[in-house]
Amino acid sequence: MRALLCAREPRLLREHPEPLERPGEALVQLRLAGICHTDLELSRGYLGFTGVLGHEFVGEVLRASDPGLVGRRVVADINAGCGRCAACAAGDAHHCPARTVLGIVGRDGAMADRFTIPEACLVPVPDSVSDDAAVFAEPLAAALHVLDDVPAGDDPVVVLGDGKLGQLVARAVIGSGRAAVVVGHHAAKLSLARAAGARGVLEADLGTELDESPIVVEATGRAAGIALALRLARPRGTVVLKTTVAGATTVDLSPAVINELRVVGSRCGDLARAIELLAAGHADPTALIEARYTLDDAPAAFRRAAEPGTLKVLIERTR
Amino acid sequence: MRALLCAREPRLLREHPEPLERPGEALVQLRLAGICHTDLELSRGYLGFTGVLGHEFVGEVLRASDPGLVGRRVVADINAGCGRCAACAAGDAHHCPARTVLGIVGRDGAMADRFTIPEACLVPVPDSVSDDAAVFAEPLAAALHVLDDVPAGDDPVVVLGDGKLGQLVARAVIGSGRAAVVVGHHAAKLSLARAAGARGVLEADLGTELDESPIVVEATGRAAGIALALRLARPRGTVVLKTTVAGATTVDLSPAVINELRVVGSRCGDLARAIELLAAGHADPTALIEARYTLDDAPAAFRRAAEPGTLKVLIERTR
Repeated sequence: MRALLCAREPRLLREHPEPLERPGEALVQLRLAGICHTDLELSRGYLGFTGVLGHEFVGEVLRASDPGLVGRRVVADINAGCGRCAACAAGDAHHCPARTVLGIVGRDGAMADRFTIPEACLVPVPDSVSDDAAVFAEPLAAALHVLDDVPAGDDPVVVLGDGKLGQLVARAVIGSGRAAVVVGHHAAKLSLARAAGARGVLEADLGTELDESPIVVEATGRAAGIALALRLARPRGTVVLKTTVAGATTVDLSPAVINELRVVGSRCGDLARAIELLAAGHADPTALIEARYTLDDAPAAFRRAAEPGTLKVLIERTR
Repeated sequence: MRALLCAREPRLLREHPEPLERPGEALVQLRLAGICHTDLELSRGYLGFTGVLGHEFVGEVLRASDPGLVGRRVVADINAGCGRCAACAAGDAHHCPARTVLGIVGRDGAMADRFTIPEACLVPVPDSVSDDAAVFAEPLAAALHVLDDVPAGDDPVVVLGDGKLGQLVARAVIGSGRAAVVVGHHAAKLSLARAAGARGVLEADLGTELDESPIVVEATGRAAGIALALRLARPRGTVVLKTTVAGATTVDLSPAVINELRVVGSRCGDLARAIELLAAGHADPTALIEARYTLDDAPAAFRRAAEPGTLKVLIERTR
């Protein structure tokens, strides 16, 4: 079968072996996958991952021990816990020290004709949610998880970054009934954020357009974004770090102490919540789709996704 | 009068003008001052401060509009708010954007024969608390404030750093009825921490002696300490940043995101709470006194305090 392997120039192998389910796992056939910034980082050596890429997907269950799953369209929580440690016992497989993470840590990902994944990770997709929307379920869940880390109330959530991550965070915030402000460099992308209901502010206009804010989400993936978030947060405010900047970064952390900020790291979220939001029509991420390629053209899809400023690039198993 | 001015080599001026109280201020005569790491940083140019140094003190009120204060021994909250802004209206003068900070921002400090300070900042010292203990009230208040930022419960508080700040944080934690673990480089200082009721762990023994911890307080003041705190914190754990490392620092922040840590900056605390702890005998910081100098020898006191590994150096007005 075909499978896209992690490499600096990800390679498409046509003779990759068919995967075999281990106990508790389902066999899933890809319908649509999304390329995430993490995929680009992995292909540059992040975490030393080797194997099949892909953790944003919607697929169809071919085989599963639960007959109710067979034939269903599904998305999945990409973290698979060991089931035996203290974190798993506490229901927190996202922080199981022995976890595998689909297409990221110790487990082949979804950019292949077929792949396996624990059945417990699967979340069925209702008919009302299109493949184009469902493929965003994983990053949308991560975006929604931001709201778990910020104080309740009416304060708007300021999102730094108008790229695909910042846009999704804004949609998650707005879809949850809260105001969002997107700060970015690109007029066209700020327009896209405005069309989704956010306020858009050019970074160059920050001084006049935006005061210190109680809640700032860093979604630029750049060290300069972290520094800006720390400066923009009001004393005793909350800064959510949403992106892992690979490697050591030079940041002036003194504003965090002087202004007694709460800086919270935020990673993956609840897939069922993302699917609910999509099914309810409270968020529509499909305007973020910039290009789509077939699995046969997956290496070209990666090259496209790596161009600066590109929004979501999708990979279809077939067209 | 005499006054110690901020300079790379702090200078003692004998002809410094007597201070004049503005409305609402008291005139205080120094009894005893402590040299803090921040004083050393200020004398190296931190915050661009020029003026009289000193923010850890116990003094005697010479003049005040409140007759009940005159003649009393006092310590003080070093943050003086403007009284008019939103932060002050919310009772949070510590984050008033126009605040002065005694001996740090916009206000001459306590290392002089006499100095002025808003009466509202003063906290009387009961007779049962000695000058040697009371001079620690300001840093002890800051140490106690750490407990406002960590989850309640029985988890021990791991303190990185066996210097004077780490030692005080451990004493504040233990005095508040919670277990503390001090991680440091110096066997003698770890013994001092143990004598105060803490567990002491050599940093070299961390791998075998200490697991990932839910609460880690960074009190080393070094970038390497921040990195260690982020590594040592359990997933979803809390890291309290207690020291401002002056200037930009290179840190790998990715553990904060991957392990979804809460990183909280913590600065000044409640002086009344510190005096209560001292009066109740629940914390005794006097074992941290390493040397005492008179105000006449204040420059020598600063040279001593700047020697690596020195604990608290005190400056007396008279002996």
